[in-house]
Amino acid sequence: MLDYQAILEEIHESLKKTENTGEVASYIPELANIPKNKFGIHLKLITGEDYFVGDASEKFSVQSISKVLSLAKAFQLVGNELWKRVDVEPSGNPFNHLSLLELENGIPRNPLINSGAIVVADVLLSHLKNPKEDFLDFVRELTHDDSIQYSEKIAESERITGFNNYAAANLLKAYGNLNNKVEDVLDFYFHQCAILMDCRQLTNAFFVFANKGNCLKNVQHLSSSQVKRINSIMLTCGFYDEAGEFAFEVGLPGKSGVGGGIVALLPHCFTIATWAPALNAKGNSYMGMQALEQFTTKTKLSIF
Amino acid sequence: MLDYQAILEEIHESLKKTENTGEVASYIPELANIPKNKFGIHLKLITGEDYFVGDASEKFSVQSISKVLSLAKAFQLVGNELWKRVDVEPSGNPFNHLSLLELENGIPRNPLINSGAIVVADVLLSHLKNPKEDFLDFVRELTHDDSIQYSEKIAESERITGFNNYAAANLLKAYGNLNNKVEDVLDFYFHQCAILMDCRQLTNAFFVFANKGNCLKNVQHLSSSQVKRINSIMLTCGFYDEAGEFAFEVGLPGKSGVGGGIVALLPHCFTIATWAPALNAKGNSYMGMQALEQFTTKTKLSIF
Amino acid sequence: MLDYQAILEEIHESLKKTENTGEVASYIPELANIPKNKFGIHLKLITGEDYFVGDASEKFSVQSISKVLSLAKAFQLVGNELWKRVDVEPSGNPFNHLSLLELENGIPRNPLINSGAIVVADVLLSHLKNPKEDFLDFVRELTHDDSIQYSEKIAESERITGFNNYAAANLLKAYGNLNNKVEDVLDFYFHQCAILMDCRQLTNAFFVFANKGNCLKNVQHLSSSQVKRINSIMLTCGFYDEAGEFAFEVGLPGKSGVGGGIVALLPHCFTIATWAPALNAKGNSYMGMQALEQFTTKTKLSIF
Amino acid sequence: MLDYQAILEEIHESLKKTENTGEVASYIPELANIPKNKFGIHLKLITGEDYFVGDASEKFSVQSISKVLSLAKAFQLVGNELWKRVDVEPSGNPFNHLSLLELENGIPRNPLINSGAIVVADVLLSHLKNPKEDFLDFVRELTHDDSIQYSEKIAESERITGFNNYAAANLLKAYGNLNNKVEDVLDFYFHQCAILMDCRQLTNAFFVFANKGNCLKNVQHLSSSQVKRINSIMLTCGFYDEAGEFAFEVGLPGKSGVGGGIVALLPHCFTIATWAPALNAKGNSYMGMQALEQFTTKTKLSIF
Repeated sequence: MLDYQAILEEIHESLKKTENTGEVASYIPELANIPKNKFGIHLKLITGEDYFVGDASEKFSVQSISKVLSLAKAFQLVGNELWKRVDVEPSGNPFNHLSLLELENGIPRNPLINSGAIVVADVLLSHLKNPKEDFLDFVRELTHDDSIQYSEKIAESERITGFNNYAAANLLKAYGNLNNKVEDVLDFYFHQCAILMDCRQLTNAFFVFANKGNCLKNVQHLSSSQVKRINSIMLTCGFYDEAGEFAFEVGLPGKSGVGGGIVALLPHCFTIATWAPALNAKGNSYMGMQALEQFTTKTKLSIF
Repeated sequence: MLDYQAILEEIHESLKKTENTGEVASYIPELANIPKNKFGIHLKLITGEDYFVGDASEKFSVQSISKVLSLAKAFQLVGNELWKRVDVEPSGNPFNHLSLLELENGIPRNPLINSGAIVVADVLLSHLKNPKEDFLDFVRELTHDDSIQYSEKIAESERITGFNNYAAANLLKAYGNLNNKVEDVLDFYFHQCAILMDCRQLTNAFFVFANKGNCLKNVQHLSSSQVKRINSIMLTCGFYDEAGEFAFEVGLPGKSGVGGGIVALLPHCFTIATWAPALNAKGNSYMGMQALEQFTTKTKLSIF
Repeated sequence: MLDYQAILEEIHESLKKTENTGEVASYIPELANIPKNKFGIHLKLITGEDYFVGDASEKFSVQSISKVLSLAKAFQLVGNELWKRVDVEPSGNPFNHLSLLELENGIPRNPLINSGAIVVADVLLSHLKNPKEDFLDFVRELTHDDSIQYSEKIAESERITGFNNYAAANLLKAYGNLNNKVEDVLDFYFHQCAILMDCRQLTNAFFVFANKGNCLKNVQHLSSSQVKRINSIMLTCGFYDEAGEFAFEVGLPGKSGVGGGIVALLPHCFTIATWAPALNAKGNSYMGMQALEQFTTKTKLSIF
Repeated sequence: MLDYQAILEEIHESLKKTENTGEVASYIPELANIPKNKFGIHLKLITGEDYFVGDASEKFSVQSISKVLSLAKAFQLVGNELWKRVDVEPSGNPFNHLSLLELENGIPRNPLINSGAIVVADVLLSHLKNPKEDFLDFVRELTHDDSIQYSEKIAESERITGFNNYAAANLLKAYGNLNNKVEDVLDFYFHQCAILMDCRQLTNAFFVFANKGNCLKNVQHLSSSQVKRINSIMLTCGFYDEAGEFAFEVGLPGKSGVGGGIVALLPHCFTIATWAPALNAKGNSYMGMQALEQFTTKTKLSIF
């Protein structure tokens, strides 16, 4: 039997001694001000046990991690119709965010790159009565925690500086792959990214993907086939152009965010979330990647 | 001595017998409603003689042809500083309007593709007191014709449907290569494209590029070195990804617009404008390209 | 307890009723002549049981499936040094086989695209005394079957028609990422691809990847960490630009070949191989993909 | 009346005072050993007068300059059929030599990039009885000089190190756009590039392009329409991804080679050749570009 608490503490100790060469995301002031040395891990077993170290209960901006939750909601709402508007292939290159959209006539490569997540946001806008409220309710329900909130301040910062996302949304509109107004879709999208959660809450929210579509309270939100598909997308596309590297080093489906969070999971076994705000050159948490690599190496638990 | 009038009439007759496989631009209603069989040519010699056939005095939307005039104004205003923000190389591929921007960190390939013209518009916005009025005055002055106007209706149509241009402008903004607000730059840009002129007016406006920088009234607007550079850009970049083909078939610096106009010139010799609204697959006037090919073949007048 | 034999038979029956819209690879006569309706599956459990239907014991050209075996041998020989010469990221686009090589200075995206496998072949050529003999011995040892042979006829056909591979190898050479002679590396590579195996032999050969690096005879060939990495590469890169789709539909690490074979595995559980020579537009076996999708759906066994 | 000799001497003096930041091409020893400070200009007027300074009568490897001569011969032999196998558009990007071939199904962008010149060489191989002898005769005839020779030593060096050209030729073969054997086409191509000429000979050889298709001895080799087309291709494609820059700064059709030569011309007026072996980052002669820019600025003679 593995002593998970000891393993998390070993990892914590080991990383304290490692030089943190990452950089905190600086494109909006709200992210830039987070202290670089914050670090937390929370592990939740499928059997319900929780283990954690460090700043695991401090809230941060989940950013792109929210794309998995919006994907789950959209998949639940429209089923396989979703794949007519967004593909499920890794994107390959860092530079070609918009290039690939042009090459492929406005069909984003996958729902976890920005353009794909904007299409997913457009789907939610079309199918939810009160999109921002309803989506927040969905996240609260998965997490079993009504305290979860949007950070209006971060959402507003993203709105002011998010020219790349405006470019992507307008390009999607030009290709006829956006049904709602650019401003409305991005307002939703910026809020979605600005959800504040801590590591514990993330392991709770992602429990549904480790548990065949059933959330913490054992409510079925997605079919096991849908969960299998979402997990496969996390594995092949969850870490930008470092997806192959994460699969190779860590071997778990997961998703990172520029807020420094990473959440990953082993189906039928556990969910795990790390927070360490300094990012590597590819935009993934420098310490979080290492913590998870150590975790799967020490426990020999991975999907491979 | 060439009989220019007879040559223009021969071309006109010959094209009447040619099947017009082009298509009128359909993306905004104002362009889509133009009758496909409109056709005019106006030729102005450096010595002042005018020759024309067909609908040469009917106004149409100059669209991208205006990019040469805005480039001329910006070059006049800021000189070689301009080339820090936009390059002078042909763009190569049709598909990669935004791709190349990403690859090259927000420096558009040249001032005659949309992204480059948007940067030029941004320069004008920063340096003109009343940008729209002042630019229209510049065009009127070059043309020696105060009746030239913006079509507010076409400008508004472009504003509503120009998602690709919004994408380009936002991407430039993301790369720090747009100093004014996206909305303001595009308002100017959509107006600039929506100028209405006829073939005769276009030959008058472009006289400055055939006459070492001196306009019809012999006022020096640009140095002969600046004119040489603008002409070279027209030659290498004036016809989207068909620039090589136009140089190859016609052999003159020129610029086309989706309104169906083409204006071209032989330095120290003449300016010539054609109008035929149906476009080929590359977005250049189908009949205009043929008329100019016939003209330089019959007269043996080209830069090569 | 699952009745695997019944499941394989159900799949076989179901596919008999499905129209096979795939096409047999035609670029070399030896592949083009294979009857399109051949079909076999072989399943081997980690516990040793075998199940099969159809043409599971008919030999075919393994083609790209061999890339996993050459990767395993090279990884065994040089360890993590290998990753200095080839990356582990999915390649993204179909068209850009050589484009990406140029963009990334001669480092292939991963070892399962042709250029990557050619680098792996170069490593084997440098480290094996008698490369072709030694590699065949490795495959025979993994499979526990000394009857496995190269098809000299297919290898020779590939040599005569393999201009794309000559292009890739010369480009690698130009970038300094090929140490041996182009002709020698490709002679090895064409032989490696021309190995003949049947479905049963493939499940035996890939047993090592489902069994923590231990082959059928329980000899340790790779560390469990190495196997995890090879499996992750199969998952993210094993199906050309359909890797995401295979992960999404099937949810197993695997590898396809243009000979119509696919082999896949669930770590600690089973290996499975299918053969159906007609390929879909992306170059993967049309019926094989469907058979495996049905298998993981019916058994609910996948890594996700 | 311009004093051409004085102008050439002024340019020579001015460049002596300029720091030469270029680098001599190093990829083959025969080019790397050329002294960096060699410099010559030769100017030939259409009226027959010659002017020169510096090392204008020292032979060097013409390299890519030969592509214009092989294009001329192939155009003479097969006429407009040529354009079915090679396009006439600028290539845009530096990196995408082979990428564009893949995107465009094996049709090179233009005959002055390597892949295009290899297709042209293939045409010559198919239509000349003794390709290498016949092509050399053509060059000698244009130049009116039987002393011109291939450097077998340089041709052999290129054969040993030309992996990029082998990659291009094999890719063309894979796309069915090469009719002869890769080895045979490249043997011809490497010889063509290895012709030795001096500045004076180059101005004589290119006289045909300034003189409506008539060579020095007034023999008609090409129609004036063919010459117009070849000149347009030189202008839009003659300087790799610096073609726009050369048109912009110099304003003449021309062609550079990695041996440090540049030849340019003003139709009906003059041909001019420079030699200065150190190259700028784009692979064009650093001093040669400047000399020609000064020449067209001082004389105000350009096509624009």
